Parts: sequence; C-alpha cells; structure tokens
Amino acid sequence: MSLVVVGSVAYDAIETPYGKRDRTLGGACTYIALSASYFSPVNIVAVVGDDFADEDRELLASRKIGLEGLEQAPGKTFFWSGVYSADMNDRTTLRTDLNVFADFSPKLPPGYAEHPYLLLGNIQPELQAQVQRQMKQLRFAGGDTMNYWIQSFREELLATIRNWDFLLINDSEARMLAGENNLRKAAQKILNMGPNTVVIKRGEYGAMLFRRDTLFIVPGYLLEEVYDPTGAGDCFAGGFVGYLSEIGCDLRNGSIDTNDLHRAVIYGSVMGSFCCEQFGVDRFRTLTRKEIDQRFEEFRRFTAF
Amino acid sequence: MSLVVVGSVAYDAIETPYGKRDRTLGGACTYIALSASYFSPVNIVAVVGDDFADEDRELLASRKIGLEGLEQAPGKTFFWSGVYSADMNDRTTLRTDLNVFADFSPKLPPGYAEHPYLLLGNIQPELQAQVQRQMKQLRFAGGDTMNYWIQSFREELLATIRNWDFLLINDSEARMLAGENNLRKAAQKILNMGPNTVVIKRGEYGAMLFRRDTLFIVPGYLLEEVYDPTGAGDCFAGGFVGYLSEIGCDLRNGSIDTNDLHRAVIYGSVMGSFCCEQFGVDRFRTLTRKEIDQRFEEFRRFTAF
Repeated sequence: MSLVVVGSVAYDAIETPYGKRDRTLGGACTYIALSASYFSPVNIVAVVGDDFADEDRELLASRKIGLEGLEQAPGKTFFWSGVYSADMNDRTTLRTDLNVFADFSPKLPPGYAEHPYLLLGNIQPELQAQVQRQMKQLRFAGGDTMNYWIQSFREELLATIRNWDFLLINDSEARMLAGENNLRKAAQKILNMGPNTVVIKRGEYGAMLFRRDTLFIVPGYLLEEVYDPTGAGDCFAGGFVGYLSEIGCDLRNGSIDTNDLHRAVIYGSVMGSFCCEQFGVDRFRTLTRKEIDQRFEEFRRFTAF
Repeated sequence: MSLVVVGSVAYDAIETPYGKRDRTLGGACTYIALSASYFSPVNIVAVVGDDFADEDRELLASRKIGLEGLEQAPGKTFFWSGVYSADMNDRTTLRTDLNVFADFSPKLPPGYAEHPYLLLGNIQPELQAQVQRQMKQLRFAGGDTMNYWIQSFREELLATIRNWDFLLINDSEARMLAGENNLRKAAQKILNMGPNTVVIKRGEYGAMLFRRDTLFIVPGYLLEEVYDPTGAGDCFAGGFVGYLSEIGCDLRNGSIDTNDLHRAVIYGSVMGSFCCEQFGVDRFRTLTRKEIDQRFEEFRRFTAF
C-alpha cells in the first residue's frame, strides 16, 4: 500500500576516509524514498531548486517514486557539506545552505490525502503536523526528528509527535527528548508522549524497538567496508516503513503482530547497511530486492541461537 | 567438566553515579570464577595478601570454587581504585597497587594439570603461557588480555595466544591487536594469529563471535539500572567458558556445533548483565541458576524475528 514521504531533497558534499564527492544527490526524503521503494509505492513531497538535475529526477523515477509532489522553486537546491572522522563515528558539518528549503511549505497534490501511510522526515515539527492534518485515511503516521527541534522547538515537537503512531530517533536524541540517560527508561517516557512504537537507532550498533508490551533489539550488520554512512538512518526508516506498508500493517486501528514490527526493524537494518556500501545514493543504482532478502536471511543466521 | 581460572584477586574502591565502595572484593579471577561457578566446577590460581578477609574466602567457597591454588603471601592484596563517568561509558583509574600481585608466579596444585579447561585472565602473557604448559589434557585454553600487553609485550602476547583456542577481547583492543579499524577484518587477522575462535566484547552494545566459517552477534541486555559495570567483561568470560565446560565442548580436538558457541555467548552476556545490577560482586550473593536461565530465554524473546 502506498506511502507518502515528506522531507528534504538535497545536494551533499561528502568526505570520508574512502573518498570525496563535491555534489551528490542526498537529503532525508531522497534516502527514505529510495529505500522504501523496494517494498511499496512511494510518493514524495519536497522542494528542489532550478538547479536540480534531470539525471537525479530520473533516478527517483526509475524506482517508480511518485514525483508529483516534488516542487521546483526558483533558486538553488538545499546544500549540505560534511566530513567524517577516521573511524566514521563522528562527522562535522562544514556548510548548510537551506536555499529553497528555507521557505518549504509542503503541498499535497490531489489524491495524496487518501494514501494510508505517512513518513515525516526530519523537518520543522509544525510543518510535519501540517502535512499530517491533510491526510484523511491514515493507517500510520510517524517520523524522525533531531536535536535542534528537541532543544529549540520542544513544545511544537511534543504537539506533533502526540499524534504519531511511531517515532524513529537516534539514541542521543532519545536521551535528550526524554531527559533520561537510560534508554529503556527513555523509551518508556517517549511512549507516554503519544507514539505507541518507538524505534531507537544506534548507528553501527543496531536498533531497538519499544512498545508498552514488547522489546526487540537487533545488532548492526557488520560490513567489511563502510564507504559513506550518510543517509543510513534515513534508509533504515525507509526499510522500516516500506516493509510495514508492503504488508498493510495498521498501527493506528488494527491489531498488531509484533513479529511484523520485528521484521520491519530487520529490513530497516538491512537497508541502512546497504546504504553505507557506496557513496551517497549510489548503492541504490544497482541494489535488487533479491539482495535485500538475502541479507535479511543473513541477519537471521548471525543472530539465531 | 572442571575449569581452571588464573588471574587477579583484588580489593577495589569503586565510585559510580549510584554510590561508592571503599573496599570490595574484585579482580578478574574473582569475577570469572564466580560467574563460571553457576555452570561448572571451578578451581582458581591466584595470590592474595595476609589482609584477605575470611568472609571473601567464604563467598568463593560458598560457590564451591576450589581454593587450593589461592596462595596467601605476606603483604597486601592487589588494590585497584576507579571512578566512572556519569553515563558509565568511561572510567578513570585512580590507583593501582600491585602489592603481592607484583611477584605472582602461578603455581598449579597437584591434580590441576589434568583439568580439561583453562581460562587465563588478563595477566602478563608469559605467565599465562607458563600455566598453559603445565596443563596436560586440555580440551580448550583461552583468555583475555589488555592494551598494556598488546602495546608493550606484543611478541610475548603473540607467542602466548598462538596456542589458545579462543581469545576474549574488547573492541578497542581487538583493533589495536590487529592494527585494523574494521572489526570484521580485525577478527580475521586475529584468527590468523592462532585462536580458532575470537569473541569481541562491546560492553553495553553486546558481543560478537568469529570463527573462519561463522559469525554470531548479540546485542547487549538493556538494564533499567546499571549500578556498577566493574567486572562485567570478566563475568561475560565466566559465563562463556562456564557453559562450554558444562556441556563438555572440545574446542581443541573435537567437532564443534557452532550453536553451542552461540549459546555460550548468550550465557556470557547474561552473566555480564547480572554483574552490573549491584556493586562489585554483590549480585552473586543471591543470584540463582534459575534467574540465569530465565534471562537466557529473555534474550531469545527480544532478539527473535
């Protein structure tokens, strides 16, 4: 069933110990949509500038991603530049030019309001809420956020996630949002803020899913080479919501088989791991669903006992 | 089947965000032996000073740990003092007084040479090798080490682990020993140094087991409260070797069911998690095998998909 993804489409300049790209397609919405497209029909809502390249539009189209909601505005596309540390566990942002993204006001094309699934990438919480209010037949809505919104737009963020079915968040941000260092307690506090499902992403260490009655933990996939971790968390999100959309999961009104959620976390982990294997979105130029399912089974083998 | 454990028995002064102890039983050999004692008969080889308290000897004896090899020498018992950071991911050593441990020369009591299992706690590599040479009917030998030996006694350490069946090591030390940042590659390099099994401990993030033909990864147990992580890595080692001894695993000459090794890693993780629930060795004053097996099953529940 079809999924609407809202967020940034950007150009990135990235430097890792393995190399450097001066301008490559990026942005949370891009990574989420590419990743989710292996599971379900995806439609994006985003804005780019008049410098957005045809070949990048074609990459998205080649994955059958609906681009009706990809607004093209006068000016330049959002630009981000960053450099990773030698062990790639830290990165430094060198530059953030919001450009056309500064005035982004998500507009849903006709028909989008009837899609059942909504993933709100990391943008201003009030914009996230504004999109959600337009959706009329949701079976789930959820999204991501970041330290900036947690610190400087806390009330807005709390009002937004109160209506989410799930929150995807990394470990340090979960601690910040909950004001609690222990992740088990932090997750419980976040569950009291509205979402019935909280997924905490831990980068190379894997991910954890919390609901009131269940806990699931998966270690990270152990890659031989991590070329570029940019977008891995967003690809995790894409795999997670993509799989739940594929199986028609109704987190809002339906009864949930928690095993479906566990499998969604594994697919998220699988997609995050593939993302790191090449620079930017390059891995998605060749990745197949067969490879995805093989790695899913590999997760089963190296975690079973 | 019975296990010989060699290493330090110490007094520790510990400060964590949850409290402070000025003098509490500690040392790698202590933690390993207490942990392993839930699975198999354990005999220790260690040295203490004339200040070693009867009640501490009695705690070990209450777990049926063989103390024939616990030498009492004139002087004071090894003393270590440390303080943990607020999130407990870092600790600072305030004081290390080797005392009687400075001249430790492990002596095996008669009969010990026939025990099938040997776990060499973190001491000088040449002393580890010296003990191993005295053992005549080994079904496995392995142990732990630390950054100091890796950096300053590298050749000695390599000569020692060449004859080990397994090496237990934490992630930063594995990277240091192998000279390789990627853990998957680091483990392969260490497998080329002698051991057929390498277990990399990652603290709160869990553990990984590598053999030439297999990989197993388990996430860490998510405690509500970590009171004191001192000894958790040694308790992991105790659970790992304790379980392998209990089932009679022959890593040296036998054929291995890799599932046995996976279960041993889980028991290691279970024991490491219990260790953190109270200060020092206190959790082992009340812990039961039933609680251990319940947590083992809990690991299965929160990792299955």
